[in-house]
Amino acid sequence: MDVNQEFNKRFREVGVAEFFRKNLQMLGYSGAIRSFTTIVHEFVTNSLDACEEYGILPEITVKIKDVGGGKKNRGLLKLKRRQEALEKAESDGHKRRADTIRREIERIENELGDSVGHFVVTIEDNGPGIPLEYVPKVFGSMLSGTKFHRYVQSRGQQGIGAVGAVLFSQMTTGKPTKVITSTGNGKASVVFLRVDVERNMAKIVDESVIDTDWRGTKLVSEFKKLIYRRGEQSPYEYLRRTAIANPHATITLHEPNKTKTVWKRTSKELPPLPKEMKPHPLGLSADDLQRFAKKSKAKKLSGFLQGDLSRVSSKRAQEVLKKAKVEDKDPMTITHTDAERILREFRNINLLSPTKEGLTPIETGHLEASLKKILDSKFIKANTRKPSVYRGGIPFQVEVSVAYGGKAGKTTSDGRKMEIMRFANKSPLLFDTGACAINSAIKSVNWKNYNIGDFENAPLTVFVNVISPHIPYRSAGKQAVADDDDVVKEIRFAVMEVGRSLKRYVSGIHREALKIRRRSMFLKYAPEIAGALGKISETNPEPIENMLIDMIQKRIKLREEKDAEEENGASA
Amino acid sequence: MDVNQEFNKRFREVGVAEFFRKNLQMLGYSGAIRSFTTIVHEFVTNSLDACEEYGILPEITVKIKDVGGGKKNRGLLKLKRRQEALEKAESDGHKRRADTIRREIERIENELGDSVGHFVVTIEDNGPGIPLEYVPKVFGSMLSGTKFHRYVQSRGQQGIGAVGAVLFSQMTTGKPTKVITSTGNGKASVVFLRVDVERNMAKIVDESVIDTDWRGTKLVSEFKKLIYRRGEQSPYEYLRRTAIANPHATITLHEPNKTKTVWKRTSKELPPLPKEMKPHPLGLSADDLQRFAKKSKAKKLSGFLQGDLSRVSSKRAQEVLKKAKVEDKDPMTITHTDAERILREFRNINLLSPTKEGLTPIETGHLEASLKKILDSKFIKANTRKPSVYRGGIPFQVEVSVAYGGKAGKTTSDGRKMEIMRFANKSPLLFDTGACAINSAIKSVNWKNYNIGDFENAPLTVFVNVISPHIPYRSAGKQAVADDDDVVKEIRFAVMEVGRSLKRYVSGIHREALKIRRRSMFLKYAPEIAGALGKISETNPEPIENMLIDMIQKRIKLREEKDAEEENGASA
Repeated sequence: MDVNQEFNKRFREVGVAEFFRKNLQMLGYSGAIRSFTTIVHEFVTNSLDACEEYGILPEITVKIKDVGGGKKNRGLLKLKRRQEALEKAESDGHKRRADTIRREIERIENELGDSVGHFVVTIEDNGPGIPLEYVPKVFGSMLSGTKFHRYVQSRGQQGIGAVGAVLFSQMTTGKPTKVITSTGNGKASVVFLRVDVERNMAKIVDESVIDTDWRGTKLVSEFKKLIYRRGEQSPYEYLRRTAIANPHATITLHEPNKTKTVWKRTSKELPPLPKEMKPHPLGLSADDLQRFAKKSKAKKLSGFLQGDLSRVSSKRAQEVLKKAKVEDKDPMTITHTDAERILREFRNINLLSPTKEGLTPIETGHLEASLKKILDSKFIKANTRKPSVYRGGIPFQVEVSVAYGGKAGKTTSDGRKMEIMRFANKSPLLFDTGACAINSAIKSVNWKNYNIGDFENAPLTVFVNVISPHIPYRSAGKQAVADDDDVVKEIRFAVMEVGRSLKRYVSGIHREALKIRRRSMFLKYAPEIAGALGKISETNPEPIENMLIDMIQKRIKLREEKDAEEENGASA
Repeated sequence: MDVNQEFNKRFREVGVAEFFRKNLQMLGYSGAIRSFTTIVHEFVTNSLDACEEYGILPEITVKIKDVGGGKKNRGLLKLKRRQEALEKAESDGHKRRADTIRREIERIENELGDSVGHFVVTIEDNGPGIPLEYVPKVFGSMLSGTKFHRYVQSRGQQGIGAVGAVLFSQMTTGKPTKVITSTGNGKASVVFLRVDVERNMAKIVDESVIDTDWRGTKLVSEFKKLIYRRGEQSPYEYLRRTAIANPHATITLHEPNKTKTVWKRTSKELPPLPKEMKPHPLGLSADDLQRFAKKSKAKKLSGFLQGDLSRVSSKRAQEVLKKAKVEDKDPMTITHTDAERILREFRNINLLSPTKEGLTPIETGHLEASLKKILDSKFIKANTRKPSVYRGGIPFQVEVSVAYGGKAGKTTSDGRKMEIMRFANKSPLLFDTGACAINSAIKSVNWKNYNIGDFENAPLTVFVNVISPHIPYRSAGKQAVADDDDVVKEIRFAVMEVGRSLKRYVSGIHREALKIRRRSMFLKYAPEIAGALGKISETNPEPIENMLIDMIQKRIKLREEKDAEEENGASA
């Protein structure tokens, strides 16, 4: 057998789209329940990003319509129950049980095959619209986009986003995705497209233009192999949390059962745009440094180090090159060894820690208002920490908010439990809870110190948002944050600061409750005592009762004032 | 801000290689220990596949050289201990502990940064060589290859293989990979290449030709951020298991500490080449059917169904089209709805289950010889099941072998434990043990029935190989098999068949042990009794002792013959 002939015959290049078609799970389309949330995530992320970039307060409407003939079969019911059990196991930290249930779910889904649900998902935003020439790329071409190269805090990460959803749609239904978009110029493009998997481009199967005074983007996509349910990892919860993290956005959801939910914006203030940041030397590998140098416009290495990196003065740049014994040459000629030496020297000198300008947290005021609207708790306190650094050179920032009472916590079959809401760059993380450092950091706090005796069952919601141009995810799934010491420390500190206020509030509640109990106890017996005294003194019990009640209340008041003094003294 | 301008300015396509550079963990390069095994896996898989396709008995040599200055630092030691603890936790099924340890390992690796090891990995095979014009593609272009499109039992899966390793090498060291290859025509190409990440091609940085009478391929690649150790998930164990599963291959390993291990072939018979198979309708989704139809050379749908699919006669093809109400038209015009209807009809008729020709197991005889060579156990029994089908239409086959005693099982700090070796298409699966259906299937067997009272601590190795043109992996990581009922059933049946022989053997050992105990017990007292009798009868004790011993042995023999009869009667 001739080797050349064999190679000629068989060797073929596989397109990116073809690769991901076979490996869609890598992009979050793993199973009928998770896929639904992934689809909503991709679409909503695009809308929010687009609106923000153009200074538009987002109005986003998601409509989910069940077109599967409302098939209610036993398998689907079974699947939903197993999913509920999975969410409980994950949140209780029962890894082995969670894994077993996950395998059962996969097995049931495989059996159900195509008789798993059939839905039409529509999303409409009031964003800037997409120029017609870019529509095929945005929705049909994997790995194209505006964010992949930039060192900036951003919700989406891969540059694959919506294309994965279009692909999933056509794989399960064969139908094209409908895109209606207008940049506000009086006309809207109406395009039907499919991903041409072999060419990694969108194939437009129909195209027309209509007159309109609307501006924005609307997608209509049909899917099978999806299951719709409410629950911790569902599209509803995803949108609810997105609304909390984006107080400037109004999000509307129409569910298959015709329920309409509107999460109205609590702020008319647009968040500042995250700024592209210069990477700090200590956050780079030698390979990174080399690549950035080769792309630099600087004519000399010193110019590159000073101009393209964060916190490197021209003096330091020269100093480092000298110590590293690297010539101040054309950055294009930098070798890997040069890069290694340069980084080693950077570790030895005293650099200012990275600039943290460019990070855009939700901010305390907005966060509290947003949570108040949705959770209606009497106690809500947020804490946005100052920006910090992990791995020596990567900026990040943590914000935490705690809500107690009202609708805080989550309702489960076992009653009300505490709830942790995790976010990375304001984007909700719903999966892989057990693997996430945010989860373990919150659970590692000694809640008894804050008067929360039974943390797991407290009516408590803890909201955590970590922002960074480079979130330290644990794995390619990007649903869990890695256990970085610096990050975990910041989360704990943030919680502890809020904890002090929480402690006072909870003990306040306890005091109230105690007051009420005391009062009711004394007042319960007052009539009897009055009656007895009345008999003994042969007088009318009524004025005695009144006097008694008066006396009791005076004493209780004194007592409470004394308690309050002690409390304040203790927590000062 | 003009939308068009913004898009023009920012919108860029990201190459496949660039995507995977940022997401190398998806390809198995997650952490310093796992990455090492992934590198060895990719190189060895290529060599084995190439040799097999050209009918060559593989001779593969792997050399691992530590060029890191032998830095022994506390961090590395700590890392190795944690890895040991991780392997134990995974194999004991302690998920939460495993996860905690995994996080600790990630944290320590991050702290160690570049001071994690530095190695040169060389692999040489006696394969057919690679024609020079294809070298840049094979080693530099992701998603190109000969296997991606074919429905065939194959070791590798992604078409990324070696390129990921070359990329990892240049990212951690900046150095190019050296490729020396000859197709046996008297000349060898010596090429130094790097992956040009932006263009998804290899950049050849040096090229020369030498005279040689050698034929094969040799790679030399340098890596940092790797840790070398022996252990369950190490390159050593990977090669050892590969040798077991490929009895026709001779594999040599030179380790950093200069140890040389040769796993010599136990068979001179080349395994038959796996044959490309026609997919069976019941194993396809509507999207699959549609795509295959569009690629078909057939002029009509009936021709496609009969010619391109397995087990569809021309009569059945016509019948199905009629019932599905789909016209017998040009396959290129098939719609998704057509495909759905056709598949629905296929499910209603009685199709023969898929052909299983084309699957190539290791085979009982070879497997036993191979295990015997490496484990030197007195008891080794293999069982290759007949091919079967999962999900209604995907062929697969299971082989299992059990070894007891000798070097079977694994040595741990807690003593000898049982060992499960998992394989998919003859390729060792070392990671994600707890998630794998093979693991749970083996543990679900009631080993007490086979006289293995304490399974976890038995000196036992259970070898399981699942082959299929489409292995049901659980996730994109492809180290764990999904919990498919049909697959699990076959694994259990295979084990149970071997179990019967194991039971007899183990009870034989028990009997032997019992024999020896009895003998030694009686013979222990014989001199004393003889002495006493001698005194009583005032004679020489010696002849009495001899007579006694003779009597005892006769009785024991009779007793043993009786026991053997009973045993055979019971297990018959």
